[in-house]
Amino acid sequence: MVVLYSLSYGAARPGDLRRQIGGISQKVLTGTLRRLEHNGLVERQRYAEAPPRVEYSLTTAGKDLLVPIRALGDWAEVYADRLPTESKP
Amino acid sequence: MVVLYSLSYGAARPGDLRRQIGGISQKVLTGTLRRLEHNGLVERQRYAEAPPRVEYSLTTAGKDLLVPIRALGDWAEVYADRLPTESKP
Repeated sequence: MVVLYSLSYGAARPGDLRRQIGGISQKVLTGTLRRLEHNGLVERQRYAEAPPRVEYSLTTAGKDLLVPIRALGDWAEVYADRLPTESKP
Repeated sequence: MVVLYSLSYGAARPGDLRRQIGGISQKVLTGTLRRLEHNGLVERQRYAEAPPRVEYSLTTAGKDLLVPIRALGDWAEVYADRLPTESKP
């Protein structure tokens, strides 16, 4: 979800995403981007430059998924500190 | 999520929920209701009748969580059959 949210600011290179997100390894980020791409939520753009440049951006499905993600974020902002945190009763 | 969504129709007894949801065991339903209650999303009402009656209903936090849940449902309705189903690339 955080990778999708970061891409809501526009196309970004993996390095940009790592800086924006912070605390995510290259391996986890690459795996996440690949899964999001496979699931049709993100698309990859290769630029034939030297060195080659790769950018990721949200597909329409990815952009539309931001609606429930933002709604969940709004809910969490209201209730995060009002509800018990540890999940096991 | 499906238990929360079922309670969006109003307070219900465990038996009602099992019929509405279908295919959920009493054990799983009870565990889910207990966790939702512990997390402040559902509240339990006991009626001192013979036999005793128990009803579950959504708290305000639970009702508000329906907003992102419904938004996710709307997204899934649009994209469910357009995107690849199996998750592993």
